[in-house]
Amino acid sequence: MSRRRERAADAMRPVRIIQGYTEMTPGSVLIEMGRTIVLATASVEDRVPKWLQRTGSGWVTAEYAMMPGSSDRRIRRDQYKGGRSKEISRLIGRSLRSVVNLRAMGEVMVTVDCDVVQADGGTRTAAVNAAWLALHDAFAWALEENMMAASPVLDRVTAVSVGIVDGECLLDLDYRDDVAASVDMNVVMTGRGLLVEVQATAEGLPFSREELDRLLDLAGIGIEQIGVLQDELVAG
Amino acid sequence: MSRRRERAADAMRPVRIIQGYTEMTPGSVLIEMGRTIVLATASVEDRVPKWLQRTGSGWVTAEYAMMPGSSDRRIRRDQYKGGRSKEISRLIGRSLRSVVNLRAMGEVMVTVDCDVVQADGGTRTAAVNAAWLALHDAFAWALEENMMAASPVLDRVTAVSVGIVDGECLLDLDYRDDVAASVDMNVVMTGRGLLVEVQATAEGLPFSREELDRLLDLAGIGIEQIGVLQDELVAG
Amino acid sequence: MSRRRERAADAMRPVRIIQGYTEMTPGSVLIEMGRTIVLATASVEDRVPKWLQRTGSGWVTAEYAMMPGSSDRRIRRDQYKGGRSKEISRLIGRSLRSVVNLRAMGEVMVTVDCDVVQADGGTRTAAVNAAWLALHDAFAWALEENMMAASPVLDRVTAVSVGIVDGECLLDLDYRDDVAASVDMNVVMTGRGLLVEVQATAEGLPFSREELDRLLDLAGIGIEQIGVLQDELVAG
Amino acid sequence: MSRRRERAADAMRPVRIIQGYTEMTPGSVLIEMGRTIVLATASVEDRVPKWLQRTGSGWVTAEYAMMPGSSDRRIRRDQYKGGRSKEISRLIGRSLRSVVNLRAMGEVMVTVDCDVVQADGGTRTAAVNAAWLALHDAFAWALEENMMAASPVLDRVTAVSVGIVDGECLLDLDYRDDVAASVDMNVVMTGRGLLVEVQATAEGLPFSREELDRLLDLAGIGIEQIGVLQDELVAG
Amino acid sequence: MSRRRERAADAMRPVRIIQGYTEMTPGSVLIEMGRTIVLATASVEDRVPKWLQRTGSGWVTAEYAMMPGSSDRRIRRDQYKGGRSKEISRLIGRSLRSVVNLRAMGEVMVTVDCDVVQADGGTRTAAVNAAWLALHDAFAWALEENMMAASPVLDRVTAVSVGIVDGECLLDLDYRDDVAASVDMNVVMTGRGLLVEVQATAEGLPFSREELDRLLDLAGIGIEQIGVLQDELVAG
Amino acid sequence: MSRRRERAADAMRPVRIIQGYTEMTPGSVLIEMGRTIVLATASVEDRVPKWLQRTGSGWVTAEYAMMPGSSDRRIRRDQYKGGRSKEISRLIGRSLRSVVNLRAMGEVMVTVDCDVVQADGGTRTAAVNAAWLALHDAFAWALEENMMAASPVLDRVTAVSVGIVDGECLLDLDYRDDVAASVDMNVVMTGRGLLVEVQATAEGLPFSREELDRLLDLAGIGIEQIGVLQDELVAG
Repeated sequence: MSRRRERAADAMRPVRIIQGYTEMTPGSVLIEMGRTIVLATASVEDRVPKWLQRTGSGWVTAEYAMMPGSSDRRIRRDQYKGGRSKEISRLIGRSLRSVVNLRAMGEVMVTVDCDVVQADGGTRTAAVNAAWLALHDAFAWALEENMMAASPVLDRVTAVSVGIVDGECLLDLDYRDDVAASVDMNVVMTGRGLLVEVQATAEGLPFSREELDRLLDLAGIGIEQIGVLQDELVAG
Repeated sequence: MSRRRERAADAMRPVRIIQGYTEMTPGSVLIEMGRTIVLATASVEDRVPKWLQRTGSGWVTAEYAMMPGSSDRRIRRDQYKGGRSKEISRLIGRSLRSVVNLRAMGEVMVTVDCDVVQADGGTRTAAVNAAWLALHDAFAWALEENMMAASPVLDRVTAVSVGIVDGECLLDLDYRDDVAASVDMNVVMTGRGLLVEVQATAEGLPFSREELDRLLDLAGIGIEQIGVLQDELVAG
Repeated sequence: MSRRRERAADAMRPVRIIQGYTEMTPGSVLIEMGRTIVLATASVEDRVPKWLQRTGSGWVTAEYAMMPGSSDRRIRRDQYKGGRSKEISRLIGRSLRSVVNLRAMGEVMVTVDCDVVQADGGTRTAAVNAAWLALHDAFAWALEENMMAASPVLDRVTAVSVGIVDGECLLDLDYRDDVAASVDMNVVMTGRGLLVEVQATAEGLPFSREELDRLLDLAGIGIEQIGVLQDELVAG
Repeated sequence: MSRRRERAADAMRPVRIIQGYTEMTPGSVLIEMGRTIVLATASVEDRVPKWLQRTGSGWVTAEYAMMPGSSDRRIRRDQYKGGRSKEISRLIGRSLRSVVNLRAMGEVMVTVDCDVVQADGGTRTAAVNAAWLALHDAFAWALEENMMAASPVLDRVTAVSVGIVDGECLLDLDYRDDVAASVDMNVVMTGRGLLVEVQATAEGLPFSREELDRLLDLAGIGIEQIGVLQDELVAG
Repeated sequence: MSRRRERAADAMRPVRIIQGYTEMTPGSVLIEMGRTIVLATASVEDRVPKWLQRTGSGWVTAEYAMMPGSSDRRIRRDQYKGGRSKEISRLIGRSLRSVVNLRAMGEVMVTVDCDVVQADGGTRTAAVNAAWLALHDAFAWALEENMMAASPVLDRVTAVSVGIVDGECLLDLDYRDDVAASVDMNVVMTGRGLLVEVQATAEGLPFSREELDRLLDLAGIGIEQIGVLQDELVAG
Repeated sequence: MSRRRERAADAMRPVRIIQGYTEMTPGSVLIEMGRTIVLATASVEDRVPKWLQRTGSGWVTAEYAMMPGSSDRRIRRDQYKGGRSKEISRLIGRSLRSVVNLRAMGEVMVTVDCDVVQADGGTRTAAVNAAWLALHDAFAWALEENMMAASPVLDRVTAVSVGIVDGECLLDLDYRDDVAASVDMNVVMTGRGLLVEVQATAEGLPFSREELDRLLDLAGIGIEQIGVLQDELVAG
């Protein structure tokens, strides 16, 4: 039952990304990381939240939700309002904003909806990866529509989960790993290799500084690999 | 811009159905009717609503919701609680129950979630068609798991929308037709050709008995075609 | 216990309508259809919903709710937000709007509240009948107040329920009929005899085209009778 | 426009009470105090709130709400949850319980719903008067049904509003009085003449002990008159 | 266990008031009445509710809530929305407004939040006493900030609870008294000795006019003592 | 106005902790970190959430909320349900559970409510520190009451915030620091010096691995100092 028999500790699950998955929104990206599937759609609106009106600045926000059939135990629709979903939505939103020049957007709002089609661990980091691409495509559309003069995207943003299972540091936890993990950590990095978010939580045993370092190293490996895919898709 | 130039009045849009679209629920069916895409997942739970406890009877229910990026105007997540969504959820649930022997289920509940991935008209009838297949597959799984002795499915159920645009009766309205329609009608029929639901609404001009008859004829044509697809998939 | 012993299959329950039942709103109509009692009050406001502002057009909407003591099992007050109530509210609103020239109203909104005082079957169709009269009276008041130049009412609208009980098609179901019905159908027609809404639902057994036709015939008989009463009251 | 021209300071508006107004609940009483109309229906349930289970004691509660068309400015349905409605519901409930032997009820709950059909001042005190009669009738029914051995009603309860308008103490304020009142006071008394609730509020100017005494005297006059009507109806 | 052994029937619990308890709001007052502790903070905003906009008048409102750990049975946070809390919030707001010239405020709103840190009876009257001081301090600050030309405070307002326990009229009920009380009464008076609110409720036995008078006398004694403290603090 | 003029980059604000601040709950701790003030009360209930029933295990949970007057801009009471508050509540709950043996509790639930009396930065870490002490005291009480055989507390837990302001790594951010920070980080450690939570967020510029290390060093310094205080209080 051990993970190590199937995949090396520093190996990612297969990643597949489809741009333009649906047609209704200017950004629409489906990502598969192993059996985890997330659809990110980016909608552009010609308005900003009240507290930004008349500041000339735009806004980027995200909403994360699990679809009812995404898990083998049915997920209630109102769960998108629960603490976990809100927390993940906030994480995705902050990650996106960290690489966007909001002032260059004008008074425009982009909402990136991240709906988990199938959940097998690492949904929030998969969501960040797809959301950034959907956001990128939405800005590309906005440029074509002359809503903006230049793309407000400053850099790439990429995320991966790592953790400690049975004392071993592992990259890209699937659900089986996640349940067994004593430490769960999500890392978000820019294309230049700087950190945007580090969220490490001891679900079971607390962890040492040395373990934290090893986890950050592993995260860097995974982020590098996903980032290559993102770059290719953006380069078109 | 007229519909007639692209598709005959009695012609369906291309229909494509994928069984087993996701892996987490025993039933998972993706349907595409033209650009309309709906994912139906059927979750089985070993309990029934309070009012059915200790009756020996099961329950089948449905929830319909549009995904935020399914339309070119972003759909708010809380809209699944709105009147329109609740009304459609009830229609789907009733349609499914009309062909299920609830007593043969035992005290088991199946919830079929119908999430609109992309909306281009006819989402509720597409949902009925996919939901019935997902329900069928969920019961097949329950049989294998020995949760039931025999399948409680009594018949097929199939739905299609029809309407009147510029005085002409049309089969399978897409969004452009829908907006222009003076009358909008949804028809649900069993495999034996009996009616389960007839919902005709004059959005603009009221309509005559003759027009109602013509619309029912058209609905029969469409339902026949979708039914063949459903039968093939069930036959495996 | 059979219905046939008390009332013929094509016979209505006694109908009684009181105009000006209360004094606070310009329209206030109490309708009794057998033991079913509904109070419809029409309130006029000098504003329209946001999406109609600056269009010059008015709006007519309805809210349906059962009073807590209207049934022998107490109805919770928050049930007006439930799926069934919302669905019926929408049906009443559409029916009223089908015979109103919204543009002729100016930016005025009429809300017709339909509160079920006592429920014995057919509450939604009783509500439509009373609501139309309350709306008519509200517009008459608005004309007197010079809020409008001409009445925006284009035609009468009348509704009745029909259904199939023990294989027999019946007009104007009371609660005992309703519980026993295999098919339940609501029909809304204009004064000119055109259809506005046809909502037929198989609660138990599905039904044939022939049965649908017979039900529409019966509905026509009932609507004719109620329409005469409405016309008399409007003629004053 | 002064009140004094129409009605003496110590004169009540005409009071009319109809027992058995509707048929679905064992208690159903309509009260008219001038133009104020309230319908009180008492529903009996064979259960008690959780905190009373297994205590052998029953419960009496009340819910007060204004109907949407009861005022010349439309009342939103969700207002029954607002502070004012909750406060009045609590007042009515306490008043009823003050004259009921809850232990003699057994584990039974009576909910008295007080719906304001038309509001012209004094709705909460009108509601108390009707609610007590509806409760009385519900207990009479419960006795007949052998749910209880003896009536748990210990005494009558009656209420009236008084207030100070332009420095003058007035009995039974209508809406016009109410708006002009500097002090508004509701008094609830038992048949034996003891006080159950005294709620005096200075909406404008504070008031003296002498004015409080005068208001209590006036309330006694009104309660005496309404109490005679209640006694007659109970005596049958 | 009798109260009388510890404290005379007409004796208050020790009262202690701290002005400027916290620093974030212009008014912040902590009151201790025996073991009952309430923190009142007054926030000033440069806006008024919609219905007061463009009237030139200000508004004073209050919100009362028990903190989760204020009682030996944990209080749920959403209870601030319950009927009891709303009712008390309304009482505090009315009491404050009865001694404020709203027109002299300009279009400014003061919200006084009364959070019960520890509940041992008499929380609502303790809240009134602290709230008035916090409001006073908020206005003093507003004067310094030149938001107002003169203080809109017309008089002092002070409150105390009284009640009947075992047939004896008592001043300033603590929780043990409160539970045993057959009558519970809250009295709010101005500095000039006029009544603002009298709320007497028979929780158990109804009460006579003589008892009401005795309770009002007791309330006067307590209010006099608290008023002296308030005056001293205001005098600085 | 720079921070460095008042306090060294590695200096904490003065910390003051009061045990037994209120009397109603078995744990009640007030903490002041500079001007930040948080009250943590721990309530013990003889029940567990549904999903733990019949497992023999207990539960520890936390709720965090800002009091309305805790900030110079009034905080709405319903904000305790917002994403930020839920996220912080979850962080506190996880931190506490990381040092508690839930199985040793028996089927008992402790809820630690953390109410921010005054907010000047670092409220969530102050809350963790006080919450752990309140939890400790609640377990001490439960031991005395013979609800448990031995204390389920395995270790101490302590938290502090750090961040980067103008490129400089700072310990224990106050509000002014927080607003100016490009990186904000919260660290939770056990008494043995192991990590429980590391949450680093780039609000502005992303950060390097070296900066992360420097921040962790600073956090260790602060946690050491607070831990000494916690240990002293627990030692009594």
